[in-house]
Amino acid sequence: MTDLGRLSLNTATCKPYTLAECVAAAKGAGLGAVGPWRDRVQEVGTETAARLITDAGLRVSTLCRGGFITARDDATAEKALADNLGAIDEAAALGSRELVMVVGGLPAAYGLMDMPHRPEDAADKDLVAARQRVADRIGQLVPYASDKGVRLALEPMNPLFTADRGVLTTIGQSLDVAADHPAEAVGVVVDTYHVWWDPDLEASIARAGREGRISSYQICDWTLPLAANTLNSRGFPGDGYIDFPTITRWVAEAGYTGDIEVEIFNESIWAMPAEETVRTFADRYADLVLPYL
Amino acid sequence: MTDLGRLSLNTATCKPYTLAECVAAAKGAGLGAVGPWRDRVQEVGTETAARLITDAGLRVSTLCRGGFITARDDATAEKALADNLGAIDEAAALGSRELVMVVGGLPAAYGLMDMPHRPEDAADKDLVAARQRVADRIGQLVPYASDKGVRLALEPMNPLFTADRGVLTTIGQSLDVAADHPAEAVGVVVDTYHVWWDPDLEASIARAGREGRISSYQICDWTLPLAANTLNSRGFPGDGYIDFPTITRWVAEAGYTGDIEVEIFNESIWAMPAEETVRTFADRYADLVLPYL
Repeated sequence: MTDLGRLSLNTATCKPYTLAECVAAAKGAGLGAVGPWRDRVQEVGTETAARLITDAGLRVSTLCRGGFITARDDATAEKALADNLGAIDEAAALGSRELVMVVGGLPAAYGLMDMPHRPEDAADKDLVAARQRVADRIGQLVPYASDKGVRLALEPMNPLFTADRGVLTTIGQSLDVAADHPAEAVGVVVDTYHVWWDPDLEASIARAGREGRISSYQICDWTLPLAANTLNSRGFPGDGYIDFPTITRWVAEAGYTGDIEVEIFNESIWAMPAEETVRTFADRYADLVLPYL
Repeated sequence: MTDLGRLSLNTATCKPYTLAECVAAAKGAGLGAVGPWRDRVQEVGTETAARLITDAGLRVSTLCRGGFITARDDATAEKALADNLGAIDEAAALGSRELVMVVGGLPAAYGLMDMPHRPEDAADKDLVAARQRVADRIGQLVPYASDKGVRLALEPMNPLFTADRGVLTTIGQSLDVAADHPAEAVGVVVDTYHVWWDPDLEASIARAGREGRISSYQICDWTLPLAANTLNSRGFPGDGYIDFPTITRWVAEAGYTGDIEVEIFNESIWAMPAEETVRTFADRYADLVLPYL
């Protein structure tokens, strides 16, 4: 029987289901872990959530997610920092070592509109400055996170999302931000959907391993055509264009021995029974990932 | 009056219009150049096209486009190479120094479908191999292009298009491919839409300038939400998220003194009269680009 002990269900893959349902589906299929989103944890409270997961004999691979720390104005920035302290507390209470950080897009995207040309928006489009604010605010969060034993796992995002979700786009860039802090304090997420195109991918994964900073390996495929809501335009490994054997080999060669998390945003997959979703991606994992670990 | 002498109309921005109509719109607004697509040239023949442009007192900034050289099978590869020789001939006949090369996506995308999982597609998803084929085939084209005085202008594309249009994603990567050849033979295109997110953008533009390889500076904005056809999801400079003053300053500091071409794929813009389109982007150029050159 295929060993699914390193496979983890990120609850976003089964978005309509409660944490208890996700835990049951993961346990039923023989997975070793779940990666819960905060909304699913908050629904039942962290204590109950932790018990649900532990009682099922599962690990928490990551908690998703903190971040959105790119605001220019102090009030919004303070609010974001406070929210991230809460996320760190939740990760610690769940026994999750890794808090995934989606750092946020440009301030110009906060209202997310078809933008008419307005010269006064210029500062909101300053990508260099937005990235510097991310580095600064990660620095502000590190002492609290380290104190709680939680690592901030920076998630570089596909440039499809640079404007509105994540100004970090490559593993190399994320490692440069992490470099100001100990490896135990700041890591990086290797999510195939976000980084598969990177010409420096092999070298950057090797560097992340060497520096002890691979927080999570997430698998999800790039499918075309993009869905109308581009956020939800992802597929099961094997249904799109990503070369999972090769990337998995690079991750294994980098010394990563942690969980492999499946995080797929896709409305058709959300319409499936959780058990069928887990069975499908477990089959793909067995075919495209596990042999290369 | 604003000096539009370095501004160029790429005919794709006014897609429904003939070359003669594009030339008239560019000339009427005081632009210095046009960047024709091959279909608009072939409609009238290269000789007539060249005369139309020269008689209007305009330059040809680039010819768009060659490329699509990622096929795995010999027959398709041969056909692509033959087509590129034709494109080189046309560029030479038009007096265009720069032939834009959109190198093509993964072979898995040739049929462009919702892909079901089929193990036999694995080799078509080998991105490393596809990129190597691009480098090899550029090498095959260089002698002919150099002989004709035409430079192959590699266009890195936004990772939104890695799967289906262009496996080159960054200026740095494109410069690495170009490095095997003289600067007069292979250059790179700096298209804001494709490269604005790159964390190494400033350094890569500086390197491209230092190496004498900036073939074209193209301006076009990243707008959200993406259009249903993501290929046509681009906007006038100022209507989206890109910081044109900063990127333009980097390009100017890199020593670029060539044309600034406006290439926008957008169905709403295509529905506008060509004169209005040119007037609109000329205003944006005057506001967001020209002061920083």
